[in-house]
Amino acid sequence: MDIKAYVLQKAMEAKAGARAIAKASSEQKNNALVKMAEAIQKKAKELQRENKKDLAAAKKKGLTKAMIDRLTLTSERIKEMSQGLIDIASLPDPVGEILKMWQRPNGMTIGRMRVPIGLIGIIYESRPNVTADATGLCLKSGNAVILRGGSEAIYSNKAIVKILREVAKKEGIHSGVITFIDKTDRQAIMEMLKLEGIIDVVIPRGGEGLIRAVTENSRIPVLKHYKGVCHVFVDRDADLKMAEDICFNAKVQRPGTCNAMETMLVDEKVAMKFLPSIAKRLKKAKVKIKGCPRTVRIIKSAVAAKEEDFYNEYVDLILNIKVVKDIDAAMDHIAKYSSAHTETIVTENYNKAMRFLREVDSASVFVNISTRFSDGFQFGLGAEMGISTDKIHARGPMGLEELTCTKFIGLGNGQLRS
Amino acid sequence: MDIKAYVLQKAMEAKAGARAIAKASSEQKNNALVKMAEAIQKKAKELQRENKKDLAAAKKKGLTKAMIDRLTLTSERIKEMSQGLIDIASLPDPVGEILKMWQRPNGMTIGRMRVPIGLIGIIYESRPNVTADATGLCLKSGNAVILRGGSEAIYSNKAIVKILREVAKKEGIHSGVITFIDKTDRQAIMEMLKLEGIIDVVIPRGGEGLIRAVTENSRIPVLKHYKGVCHVFVDRDADLKMAEDICFNAKVQRPGTCNAMETMLVDEKVAMKFLPSIAKRLKKAKVKIKGCPRTVRIIKSAVAAKEEDFYNEYVDLILNIKVVKDIDAAMDHIAKYSSAHTETIVTENYNKAMRFLREVDSASVFVNISTRFSDGFQFGLGAEMGISTDKIHARGPMGLEELTCTKFIGLGNGQLRS
Repeated sequence: MDIKAYVLQKAMEAKAGARAIAKASSEQKNNALVKMAEAIQKKAKELQRENKKDLAAAKKKGLTKAMIDRLTLTSERIKEMSQGLIDIASLPDPVGEILKMWQRPNGMTIGRMRVPIGLIGIIYESRPNVTADATGLCLKSGNAVILRGGSEAIYSNKAIVKILREVAKKEGIHSGVITFIDKTDRQAIMEMLKLEGIIDVVIPRGGEGLIRAVTENSRIPVLKHYKGVCHVFVDRDADLKMAEDICFNAKVQRPGTCNAMETMLVDEKVAMKFLPSIAKRLKKAKVKIKGCPRTVRIIKSAVAAKEEDFYNEYVDLILNIKVVKDIDAAMDHIAKYSSAHTETIVTENYNKAMRFLREVDSASVFVNISTRFSDGFQFGLGAEMGISTDKIHARGPMGLEELTCTKFIGLGNGQLRS
Repeated sequence: MDIKAYVLQKAMEAKAGARAIAKASSEQKNNALVKMAEAIQKKAKELQRENKKDLAAAKKKGLTKAMIDRLTLTSERIKEMSQGLIDIASLPDPVGEILKMWQRPNGMTIGRMRVPIGLIGIIYESRPNVTADATGLCLKSGNAVILRGGSEAIYSNKAIVKILREVAKKEGIHSGVITFIDKTDRQAIMEMLKLEGIIDVVIPRGGEGLIRAVTENSRIPVLKHYKGVCHVFVDRDADLKMAEDICFNAKVQRPGTCNAMETMLVDEKVAMKFLPSIAKRLKKAKVKIKGCPRTVRIIKSAVAAKEEDFYNEYVDLILNIKVVKDIDAAMDHIAKYSSAHTETIVTENYNKAMRFLREVDSASVFVNISTRFSDGFQFGLGAEMGISTDKIHARGPMGLEELTCTKFIGLGNGQLRS
């Protein structure tokens, strides 16, 4: 069978799965999730055996150490993957929730009911844990999932899918609910992206290149996040000790994440006082500073930032610093350079806090909190399918609710339109 | 200037408008809407003079009577257009609404705030009233709008836009908030659809051809509705008098609308009793019936329906009728043939009502209500930007809320991630 026919056949089976799982009870879904968690734990050895094949291939291909690390299924990671499914089982089921109902003058009652989206396509790169996480979130929210993982993790992914599907079968769940595209050619992705009306939404997870390729080629709606160019603005009315702690935490605590700070904006009124102290601390943590001309005059070890640096997501111990005139200049900078992921103001001034909160147009906007809290678990969503920097459907961390939509429901007793 | 550069320049101005209008107060927006309504009423003669140019061109081009009717700005329609803006002014402002806030164990408070989407592109065909309606809805919800109307209504559209922009200017609203693409070439649409990151969402309004062309060519998210193939299922436990009234209303009251019934599904247990009576009434109303083999045996005047008829949106006095085994067969039929717009069950049986409500996957699902109620005004949304049959972002009638998204907000006092 050629790839086009293969992908279409898989997707049609998955579509049938979507209709079936939409009706499943919370109990049935939760039972399956817990049993899947147990099975993953029980078959850890088997998983690691398959994972070793991927690791061997990765070494042969000369992948970087960081990439090989991401690929590796340690016992700890298998435990986390298993625990993730148990956590998802313990979350409330979003399906069937009635958000509101209101009565119309003619006596009919209209409301909104939360329902699954249907069939969700996940296109992802190396991390094999996405296979279990994404499946768990889709299953719990009453959706079928069609997975297409990267070639680097193909043995690990297939092993995980096999375990999940075996449990699903035992639990009476339709075989289409967990569907894996077992073709690592790029064409398989392209064929998926043409299936408008069959796959309801595509969520790409991986590098910017993958995400751009998916967006540009998809006729299906895409939920995505390109990058995280996050800002902290230290206002003149900030508690400077708090500002220093927040900025340090936002940059250093885990610089490789999308919610780490890339650019620090400092009100000119406090720059002379604030910058030398934090510069010392950043230097100790081996952070390289790229600064605007004023920053470079204050921090001797800083190098001059170029215009394009302010668009950059370093994912590393590098920080842009810019001294700005006031909150308006800070918000102008953010509007221009930000990827609309997460921004924080540090201030004790009520009016400026409220303005920043309202006027900054990013997925997460904070007052006096480290940008590192922009995360589904930290927000209390219980689980996360990635972070959307789109402005349609889902914005910010995507939990179970973001994997649903609402339909209108109407209850009447014979209403006719005149 | 070539079209590409022209569209980009207009869109950049509109983008600046989006940032400005997002901050506007409800009072400023409402004042502007009311003054726009007054200006449209006051300049009715001017509008009609421009409209006559479109009508003359339409006659020359040999457009159908129905198309010319849609294009005509009667005094009554101008009054409605004006009243529409006043109605929008009187609706609550969705921007800034905080949907919920919750506290996290570390003391920070996280919430969701409703914010404008940004810049909304409207691509539409002949009806010039869309120009005012869409602008009013976008303005009220804090969005800028970039309008691209069809060539048939170009004089009318430009006249309406001129009035709206004059008022906007007087009211201190950024000139980019209402932007009109004054190029009727198809290329202008194609250039708009490439502006990912500038235009945030595109809403096409018009025939299926236009909507498909927009969807296939857009890199920007699209909110759309292809067609309305709506069903009424008459269950064996229906009040047959109510069922007859609902089916008659759903088909005959205004057959040219997307929420009119196209296919009636009848439980075999009541087909013999139900069909002859409604057939007589439909015949009197000049409805042509296409039936399944069993229907054709019961209703002598019915012609045999072909498979493809069940996918058809007639927008006319034609009705498909199919006799089905039970509610499951009815829901299977709907899952296969429906455009997921609106479906109704007529039944007195509680369990079947609840099953239909939960299991049917359409934008609006009713019990004992005519499908004709699937409409933003009838639902009490106050206004409508069309009906979405998508499953992402907006589903069903789109009111002001559907022109917004939410961002996460966080209020803290120095929380750091460890």
